[in-house]
Amino acid sequence: MIGEIITIGNEIISGETQDLNAWYAAGRLTRAGLRVKRMTMVGDDPEMVTLVLRQAKHSSEFVIVTGGLGSTDDDITNEVVALALERPLCIHQEMLKKIKKIAHKRNIPVTNSLLKMAYMPSGSQLISEKGVACGFYLIEEGVPFYFLPGIPEQMRYLLDNFVLTDILNRFQVKDVRVFKLIRTYGLTEPEIAEAFRKKRALEESVIFGFYPQFPENHITITANGEDSSKVQELVEEAQKEVLGILKEHVFSVDNEELEEVVGRLLKEKGLTLSTAESCTGGLVSHRLTNVAGSSEYYLGGVVAYSNHLKESLLGVTPQTLDTFGAVSMETVKEMAEGIRKITGSDLAVAISGIAGPSGGTKEKPVGTVCLGFSSKDLSEARTYRFFGSRIQVKQNSAAMALDWIRRYLCGYPVLPGV
Amino acid sequence: MIGEIITIGNEIISGETQDLNAWYAAGRLTRAGLRVKRMTMVGDDPEMVTLVLRQAKHSSEFVIVTGGLGSTDDDITNEVVALALERPLCIHQEMLKKIKKIAHKRNIPVTNSLLKMAYMPSGSQLISEKGVACGFYLIEEGVPFYFLPGIPEQMRYLLDNFVLTDILNRFQVKDVRVFKLIRTYGLTEPEIAEAFRKKRALEESVIFGFYPQFPENHITITANGEDSSKVQELVEEAQKEVLGILKEHVFSVDNEELEEVVGRLLKEKGLTLSTAESCTGGLVSHRLTNVAGSSEYYLGGVVAYSNHLKESLLGVTPQTLDTFGAVSMETVKEMAEGIRKITGSDLAVAISGIAGPSGGTKEKPVGTVCLGFSSKDLSEARTYRFFGSRIQVKQNSAAMALDWIRRYLCGYPVLPGV
Repeated sequence: MIGEIITIGNEIISGETQDLNAWYAAGRLTRAGLRVKRMTMVGDDPEMVTLVLRQAKHSSEFVIVTGGLGSTDDDITNEVVALALERPLCIHQEMLKKIKKIAHKRNIPVTNSLLKMAYMPSGSQLISEKGVACGFYLIEEGVPFYFLPGIPEQMRYLLDNFVLTDILNRFQVKDVRVFKLIRTYGLTEPEIAEAFRKKRALEESVIFGFYPQFPENHITITANGEDSSKVQELVEEAQKEVLGILKEHVFSVDNEELEEVVGRLLKEKGLTLSTAESCTGGLVSHRLTNVAGSSEYYLGGVVAYSNHLKESLLGVTPQTLDTFGAVSMETVKEMAEGIRKITGSDLAVAISGIAGPSGGTKEKPVGTVCLGFSSKDLSEARTYRFFGSRIQVKQNSAAMALDWIRRYLCGYPVLPGV
Repeated sequence: MIGEIITIGNEIISGETQDLNAWYAAGRLTRAGLRVKRMTMVGDDPEMVTLVLRQAKHSSEFVIVTGGLGSTDDDITNEVVALALERPLCIHQEMLKKIKKIAHKRNIPVTNSLLKMAYMPSGSQLISEKGVACGFYLIEEGVPFYFLPGIPEQMRYLLDNFVLTDILNRFQVKDVRVFKLIRTYGLTEPEIAEAFRKKRALEESVIFGFYPQFPENHITITANGEDSSKVQELVEEAQKEVLGILKEHVFSVDNEELEEVVGRLLKEKGLTLSTAESCTGGLVSHRLTNVAGSSEYYLGGVVAYSNHLKESLLGVTPQTLDTFGAVSMETVKEMAEGIRKITGSDLAVAISGIAGPSGGTKEKPVGTVCLGFSSKDLSEARTYRFFGSRIQVKQNSAAMALDWIRRYLCGYPVLPGV
């Protein structure tokens, strides 16, 4: 089944807002074995909306439209759909009831701008699964059109809980699509391309994709077919080959983020972790604590942005700071040992570097970052050089710190420094 | 001048990758006074690419196409353009020279996949401003088509350094567009809509946009015209009215992030800041340190994820933790006072809450977050209730903490708690 996605909103075509709705919907549809052949974004512009709706009607088997369903004046979807598909606006009784009920519950008057939302193109069916989130659909010459709100949470909820199932049921989709996302850290895209060129003898029936996702590199494997177990098998074989090529640089094949992998490994081994961050400014601990249940293994950390805090909180000696500087292997070693002692954690990682844009010197240019690791048996430090903006240096340093933990826990060597 | 943007790539329509190129190009074109009326994404699919190229030729004054220019097999743009616009592929001598030169410099053989890139639709002109980044353009019945690589850095570089200027010169654009982005925190979208409905008597010649940008709400003001100073004036008047309506909830009118506003205010007043975070896990310090030069006013902080660290590092008393719990106004007050003493900062903020998805109780459900503030003269705490996912609770809590600092520094009351 081949469909398309249309996004309506001036904020999208003016570049003010990124259209995450089309991206999300495309991903969900594709994973479900459906195909998206076009995504189109137009403004709150009746002429363009009419044009793309009519084009879609003639070339797609299903159409998902997001945006323009709200109560403010720039929300024009209902009216334009009525004109474009020649279905006069009528009061939708079920919607009217809903609006009155909510207004009553919240003790607010039923204003005209609320009432506006009850006028819908004739033949519309409500999509409304939870409280206020509300869209509608209609069948136009056999093609289902789904109209969803532009607010990402609402749109995602209705897509996942109604639209996807409705499309799959309606068309009795049989084709299975197996998709695998392999995430790597530590190799550049040309290095990955080179590694594949040398060794690749992979099945033609699977499709590979290569996507830099800063600071990681992702590889996708996709296969389609009616025989689910055969498709699954093909993808698994391809995955094995990829692992053979990229080895320990692969950190995840099960849609896990790096911080989730680290968390899982720590839990498996019953170990705890703490962090001492300077240039990453808390990004490592932020990522670690994005994982539900991270308090089981992550005890906490210090963001020692000033030298004073590196001394007073982490116990880095003034001699070390004077002799080697805040960005040095000696300092990060002491930072890691310091935070491990304070927190009583099994492992600790420390980061100090020059995120830029200023602060670089000839010996230590912007992007110079030192990483330190401490456990009962081991104390180690290395210096890396990262490139890009301040934020990119922070991102790369934080990813490297998480990857160090992963490599230690798996018994892999850490990446070589400069 | 009205144009459109086309993105080519299977990774886009399958939802694997977000299309940041179209978003970036749309923003740059709009700011330059041009208008984008449609953005279209299609796969590496000759039929669809042909269709959208031909549609664009008949409906736009300029067309920007990104993606599919590389050397791998899924890069089909050159071939499809040749077919769609009926311009046979020829060896482009300048491009061939470039390729040979680069191969020579890097000491790599001139393989067929490299040579492939020298075959271009007849009449193509190279766009090549820096090293390897390379695109081309051609004029089709008076409409310029610009073909740019899909790698964001290269695409952005060529757009900014060639395409924008070329379009502006070609069409001698005179219209000026003034755009203002007003950012607010602390009001919901319905509250903003209501406030505007009551008081709005604004110029019809400016366009307002309302965009929830979790956890903030943004308002845009746009005006067009040939008289630059008049357009500027209109927007400034509208901005004054918006400030009159939304008052201290507006934190930025100059494209500053909340952490940049906080940083600027701290620098202006010569004050320093430290943080004690539990449920936000370092997100507040991460945001603060995203700002270049933040080490001037941000001393650092503690991520006290465990109760042990709240006691041992921040000096929260066991009695407080026992009696009131880790998520309590008493605890966050002591956390804020503790980190202020340790770091010697002028101000400190502390956050402790239940980010979820588990850990909630009847009295303290998921999303309950306590904020504490400490300065020489003031110690204050409040409890808030946030909704949404774990990440959203973290984001809202971190934004509230930054907003507290802003409000204290501006003399505004902080938002009421539960």
